[in-house]
Amino acid sequence: MAKIKVGIVGLGLMGGSLSLALKKHSKDYYFIGLDHNEEHCSQALKLGLADEITTSLDTLKTCDIIFLSIPVDGIIAVSKQLGSLPADCTVIDLGSTKEKISLSVPEEIRHNFVTAHPMTGTEKFGPNAAIEDLYNDKVVVLCDIKMSGEHQEKVAKKLFSDIGMNIVCMGSKEHDRHAAFISHMPHALSYAIANSVIKQEASESIIALAGGGFKDMSRIAKSSPNMWEDIFRQNKSNVLEAIQTLQSELKKCQKMVENEEWDTLNDWMKDANTLHDILD
Amino acid sequence: MAKIKVGIVGLGLMGGSLSLALKKHSKDYYFIGLDHNEEHCSQALKLGLADEITTSLDTLKTCDIIFLSIPVDGIIAVSKQLGSLPADCTVIDLGSTKEKISLSVPEEIRHNFVTAHPMTGTEKFGPNAAIEDLYNDKVVVLCDIKMSGEHQEKVAKKLFSDIGMNIVCMGSKEHDRHAAFISHMPHALSYAIANSVIKQEASESIIALAGGGFKDMSRIAKSSPNMWEDIFRQNKSNVLEAIQTLQSELKKCQKMVENEEWDTLNDWMKDANTLHDILD
Repeated sequence: MAKIKVGIVGLGLMGGSLSLALKKHSKDYYFIGLDHNEEHCSQALKLGLADEITTSLDTLKTCDIIFLSIPVDGIIAVSKQLGSLPADCTVIDLGSTKEKISLSVPEEIRHNFVTAHPMTGTEKFGPNAAIEDLYNDKVVVLCDIKMSGEHQEKVAKKLFSDIGMNIVCMGSKEHDRHAAFISHMPHALSYAIANSVIKQEASESIIALAGGGFKDMSRIAKSSPNMWEDIFRQNKSNVLEAIQTLQSELKKCQKMVENEEWDTLNDWMKDANTLHDILD
Repeated sequence: MAKIKVGIVGLGLMGGSLSLALKKHSKDYYFIGLDHNEEHCSQALKLGLADEITTSLDTLKTCDIIFLSIPVDGIIAVSKQLGSLPADCTVIDLGSTKEKISLSVPEEIRHNFVTAHPMTGTEKFGPNAAIEDLYNDKVVVLCDIKMSGEHQEKVAKKLFSDIGMNIVCMGSKEHDRHAAFISHMPHALSYAIANSVIKQEASESIIALAGGGFKDMSRIAKSSPNMWEDIFRQNKSNVLEAIQTLQSELKKCQKMVENEEWDTLNDWMKDANTLHDILD
């Protein structure tokens, strides 16, 4: 049987981990990688994330599946450079915001695209950060799936199931609002916590005391500024709304402490506890 | 050799884990537990966190070491109920704020006290939450240690070393300010994140998308409201300062996104990244 040819544009954490996960599932895949960072290309070859490297998008057009695991701006740019594609080629982008991508892909190849957001990641980046089980037992959101071709929908759903993902379908507009609350605002907050502490006079002795809670809250403040600049730009209005909502909750907490409204504060914390009835 | 008698007031996560850690280190300890919650007492006996239960503080006064692993208000109340103590009895409190405790312990027994804050915990509570390695490789802050007797200082330092802790000494005033930034404000924030999301109209479908980042940021929002009400009360002014600092950082982020100052935002995130040069 001929191997399934998979192109990966962007050989970082997401693209690299996808290659590892698919390889674990089946030996039938052959991976062609493309990355503007030459060091990433040689690392990817060495780590077995790609079987060959290309510098040309045209080479990838012979693939059965093409993953775009690069920032959102790049995804939109590549979608415009692709030109025409074979009818059964499936392009899956993994961008963290979806509405602009969904609306920007040229009409001619829109049915080739499946626009997906795997709700997973780590604070690390680059090919060395790739891990085999990044996707396992995590949620992937497929957006505006009715704009994808039937074949493409089938390919994407099978592939994400194969690597252990739980598939959720929703509109890209709804996705972007949800993602602002569940992912983008928490990242802004984690950066803010980190900056609040390192700007203190005694920052080193404060940080020396860090326990598990602080480490958890500041972990995602390690994330790539370039990637997150792009996400905040693409999802500006939803991100601002989510930050505003968070600011209001925090202001409430501040007022209750200030005015020593301990019972109300206690109730507010009990409300927060209920998150975990749904989450766990 | 006679066993070392250890009293534990408060048979929850902190007290219970301490018993397990000391037992792991040596068989020379005998534990007498006291807790106003009768269910906790029988659970603690069953789990082996205590060898016997007492309902009287006087019984504990025959112990070599007494741990107070209860909320700060309770620690202060118990310190006043103890009356006089044998000269070589060591009382170690594990409260999360230290200045009020340090200043409230009656003069007569101040040298018996070592006021400590182990920078560890989980979001769980009660005897069932106790784990053997809660303290291992974590920091414990000993405050105002010069107010403790020499014997007591030695006992506390040996004991915390024995269970694998890294000892840091500082003034209680400094500790309370540091703890506000590294622990108390992050808890307020985690409660605020949880409340921001659960109050959204589509909260269940938002929460269904939660990845590792959100789970980390909201984990400590499971923590006990009663315990945290007490901490926020005891450390009110420092907590308010830390929340205010965080609000300013978040406001900065909000403004940069609003005004599309992407380069400045990128720099701000790079600043946050540097936390991990110190933390990791």
